[in-house]
Amino acid sequence: MGQDALGEFGLIARLTTGLESRPDVVLGVGDDAALLDPGAGAWLVATCDAQIEGRHFIHGVATPEEIGHKALAVNLSDIAAMGAEPLWALISLHLPASVEVEFLDRVYAGLRALASRHGVALVGGNVASTEGPLALDVTLLGRVRGGAAVPRSGARPGDALVVTGTLGAAAAGVLAFVTRAGEEPPAVGAAALRRAREAMVTPVPRIAAGQALGTSGVVGAMLDISDGLASDLGHICAASGVGALLEAEAIPVDAAATEVAHACALDPLALALHGGEDYELLCAVRPEGVQLALDAVARSGGAAAVIGRVTEAGDGMLMRTGDGTIRTVKPRGWDHLRRTIETCPIK
Amino acid sequence: MGQDALGEFGLIARLTTGLESRPDVVLGVGDDAALLDPGAGAWLVATCDAQIEGRHFIHGVATPEEIGHKALAVNLSDIAAMGAEPLWALISLHLPASVEVEFLDRVYAGLRALASRHGVALVGGNVASTEGPLALDVTLLGRVRGGAAVPRSGARPGDALVVTGTLGAAAAGVLAFVTRAGEEPPAVGAAALRRAREAMVTPVPRIAAGQALGTSGVVGAMLDISDGLASDLGHICAASGVGALLEAEAIPVDAAATEVAHACALDPLALALHGGEDYELLCAVRPEGVQLALDAVARSGGAAAVIGRVTEAGDGMLMRTGDGTIRTVKPRGWDHLRRTIETCPIK
Repeated sequence: MGQDALGEFGLIARLTTGLESRPDVVLGVGDDAALLDPGAGAWLVATCDAQIEGRHFIHGVATPEEIGHKALAVNLSDIAAMGAEPLWALISLHLPASVEVEFLDRVYAGLRALASRHGVALVGGNVASTEGPLALDVTLLGRVRGGAAVPRSGARPGDALVVTGTLGAAAAGVLAFVTRAGEEPPAVGAAALRRAREAMVTPVPRIAAGQALGTSGVVGAMLDISDGLASDLGHICAASGVGALLEAEAIPVDAAATEVAHACALDPLALALHGGEDYELLCAVRPEGVQLALDAVARSGGAAAVIGRVTEAGDGMLMRTGDGTIRTVKPRGWDHLRRTIETCPIK
Repeated sequence: MGQDALGEFGLIARLTTGLESRPDVVLGVGDDAALLDPGAGAWLVATCDAQIEGRHFIHGVATPEEIGHKALAVNLSDIAAMGAEPLWALISLHLPASVEVEFLDRVYAGLRALASRHGVALVGGNVASTEGPLALDVTLLGRVRGGAAVPRSGARPGDALVVTGTLGAAAAGVLAFVTRAGEEPPAVGAAALRRAREAMVTPVPRIAAGQALGTSGVVGAMLDISDGLASDLGHICAASGVGALLEAEAIPVDAAATEVAHACALDPLALALHGGEDYELLCAVRPEGVQLALDAVARSGGAAAVIGRVTEAGDGMLMRTGDGTIRTVKPRGWDHLRRTIETCPIK
């Protein structure tokens, strides 16, 4: 059977069905990160994610420093989504013979600068040569107070849906710099182009906001938006057994995404819903705790907005537009948009 | 600068020089695994290693189950070399579009069978598509009693050098099945060919022996032999600031390695010294504790032999042959032998 028939999530489910566990595994495959109990009061949080040339970055679009930054940032984002503190990283490098040492120096400089900013120590790794593309596999370990981690599975009908930051800018970056590579850049201002590019190549993991939300006591479910708001909201709905109603006008579409989308004759909301790689946090907040959660994010230096609410599972995933119309939201993500760099359902 | 100018270890040193650490990092880059102190009395042990098609395995030589087995086994071996207990694994899969789901089922079956044998839970991972070869990046976490882990750096002049199992069989497998692919197999018995192939594709990590040696209290330094006895002994000498004298006649050359080497007109001892991928343990044992260490390995179900002793740094790495001649041992490993699948110093 071809992989496309299953897709990324189907394949993971197939390969991990009926896994033997251990009593010290609090949460295994299927969330942003694993939760492990070494018996010390705090839980260990573990995640890994790869950045592969041609799939997750493209030479010439991202600088070496940006490639290193993003390899760690996408893992920090998963630790943030558990409300945890990042601690230790291991890096497995798959290295084509053509890569110069000076290029790697710069990749590691970008990675180390971000690690330093978050107090993460690089403690191990591996270097292997490959006939394939350059790849960086980062494993990141973190810590969270036992019981305080936020899984995807705790959303309840009536919860408010809250998202940090703005959405769609990374997808705008792909539209402007990857899908249209070789063409004229879209007719938008330099500031919007710069913001879209930065969102794509140097995402900012929401570590402080994640910890603020995790310790607020009012967040039932949380994840980071890597595949796109619609797809990742679908993960919360599936894991929690709930539905959702989004308010289209409340979704914080990034201004640069709006500019780029208009220049490309696309709906900005489509970038925010299905673009992906935003690395913002999406969470389900108990109705009585909404102001508390918003204040906690603000105190951490971030911004957050209520974009809808959690409903009963039978309602599915819906969105109310400005004129009151309610339509179904499909949990499709990045790969349908990202034509030139993403054609199969596994990225 | 090209990578070859630095080699694997030079490159790692360059990329990790002056790393910022944290007070809870007991041992960072440069040993078999990192030692991390989550503050629970026990230390966390973390390691990662990749298996990449065309470098570490070849379709048609190894079965899918064997590919999965080896991806975990090489990581288990690093945990064994710290005297630790393996607990949790994360797997990052780099997946070319051509790989069928049924092939992956079998890879994971091999991996899960070995995980089950050692009580390891698969707790997370990632799947990414690649235009390059199939690769499995495994991160393995384990636990060891605080202070009881065995680094590479604690060997002292006068210590005995002890190795588990036999050496050279995996290199014989490469000679018979990879370097000579397409040629007639070497003229050796079926049992020797089978043993050489098994050593190459399904190495047995010495978890029980590693824990027995680690808790014996008489082992000052330990690592697993992945690059070859000479190269890995070089690592102990460099990390501990010592020299070594090997007794050629005491080195447990595998019988299959001897058969295959003779059929290929090679010196069996060269396979044992420079072949690599043995995944046996090499350790420096305090002189008064040698019998205790050998008994501990025997009780764990393994075998071990004294193959020389640790000397002063100025003596370098030497070997005494049967006729009393003493010659220098170069710390060269696998890549010089493995011509067809290994031509650069980074594997």
